[in-house]
Order: sequence, then structure tokens, then C-alpha cells
Amino acid sequence: MSEKLFKHLEMEAVGNAVSLPEVLSAIQFGRDGLVPAVAQQHDSREVLMLAWMDRQSISETLETGRVCYWSRSRQAYWRKGETSGNIQRLVEMRIDCDGDALLLRVDQHGSACHTERRSCFYLSVQGDEVKILTQAATSSS
Amino acid sequence: MSEKLFKHLEMEAVGNAVSLPEVLSAIQFGRDGLVPAVAQQHDSREVLMLAWMDRQSISETLETGRVCYWSRSRQAYWRKGETSGNIQRLVEMRIDCDGDALLLRVDQHGSACHTERRSCFYLSVQGDEVKILTQAATSSS
Repeated sequence: MSEKLFKHLEMEAVGNAVSLPEVLSAIQFGRDGLVPAVAQQHDSREVLMLAWMDRQSISETLETGRVCYWSRSRQAYWRKGETSGNIQRLVEMRIDCDGDALLLRVDQHGSACHTERRSCFYLSVQGDEVKILTQAATSSS
Repeated sequence: MSEKLFKHLEMEAVGNAVSLPEVLSAIQFGRDGLVPAVAQQHDSREVLMLAWMDRQSISETLETGRVCYWSRSRQAYWRKGETSGNIQRLVEMRIDCDGDALLLRVDQHGSACHTERRSCFYLSVQGDEVKILTQAATSSS
């Protein structure tokens, strides 16, 4: 039923708005209660990482302006940068056409990746090989 | 066990390579056999969409150079642009640090979104509202 809202929004004019709570209740969470969220550096447009959010972490992120994910491996909220200092400040949250994916335009302090690389996407398929694109830092900045 | 490969790759030097089949076998597919794949326009760096791939659609995409997803709603392979003509040519496939997400750098012909918008992420959270950022096209280009 909540998919109907996104269907309805398809034909809305640019600049028109609907209430945030209405849209949040319509988000298509998976069976695990999560949606994938892509973090992109807002100015350079580099894609930094992909992680997961539940309803509560979306609300917290919007309230605090600091990105909070749900860690599937730890089964706990993951306030990005809480231990590393590499916080993600939220610049803008976007929702996709059918409400089952998020794009977080962020300002990333330091590295997004746990290896201290700027982006998690440092493995590149090149022919029949996969190459390392960037170096792991030995100390955090 | 396959997570070990990604752990091992963390400390590899830039430019070092491992075999593609080895990395593909280590990808951490979800219980549904899928991983999320983010499509990004390679030159403008605009994030276009997020969709899902299984092992077979990854192989097909690498072989043909045209992006093939797995459609969760239709439970079928989804060769992007097959009906709309809005094909995605693969420029580069990247894999993230723990092998459970893909970044597809693509050259998108026309619109990525089924609403004929360039990007699926056209809904923007602004305060307590969600605004429409771009107009749905009335005809495809």
C-alpha cells in the first residue's frame, strides 16, 4: 500500500512537497527492517560506502545531522566516526523512486572505510583480475 | 571463510592484483543470493540508481559490457534498457572492502529511472518535507 505514495509522487511537479513522516512511513524496508544507504561526498561526488539503515537510524540521522547506520555484523546502531573520529555530517538525504534505497549526500571527515581509505570501493575489476586502487593508510588523519 | 580474502586484500599494495574468479567466489551474497549494486555515471559522478545483482548477472555484465541486474519485483534478470533503450554500458566495476556491495561506473544512455528521470534519487528531504527535485519526462529521448 505504501508503494502507492511513491507511485503518486512520480507525476508531482518539481518543487512540490509532501510531509516527511508520510514518506518515512512509506519506505519499503526489507524483511530485516533495513534499506541500503549509499554515502556520497557531496562536493566531489565520490561514492564512499554502502551501509544499512532502519527506521530509527534514519530519524536519528535527520535529527542530529550525523549519520547513524545499523550494523548488520554487530547488530547494533553504528554512529559513524564514534570511535574513529571519521564522522559523516549529513548534507542531504535523498530517497529513490520506489522508496527502497537512500542516497546520503555527506561531508566525510577523514576516511569512510575501516581500512582508512577514503572510499570502501577500492577494488577494481580489470579484465580477469581485480586490482587494488588505493593504499591503506597506516595512521588516521 | 571467503571474508578472509577481503581481509587479506586490505593490506595489499596499490596496483597488486588477484584473480577475478577468486574474488567473485568470495563475494558476500545475502540470503537471497543478491548484493546491492550502485550505478554511477562515470564522468559526472551522478548516482543514478541502486539495484541488485546475483552471481550470474555479475558475470553477464562483465562479459557483455552491458549492465544486467536481478529484478526482485519480477524475480527475473533485468537487462537494463532492453525494452526502454536506456542501456547502461559498464565502464568499470568496483567491489567494496568487505565484498558485499558493488559500484558500477557506467555510461547511462538516457534515463536510469523508470519515470524517465536521469536519476532515481529525485526525492529530497528538506526539513519536515520531502520535495520533488526533477520533472518526470513525458516522452523518452
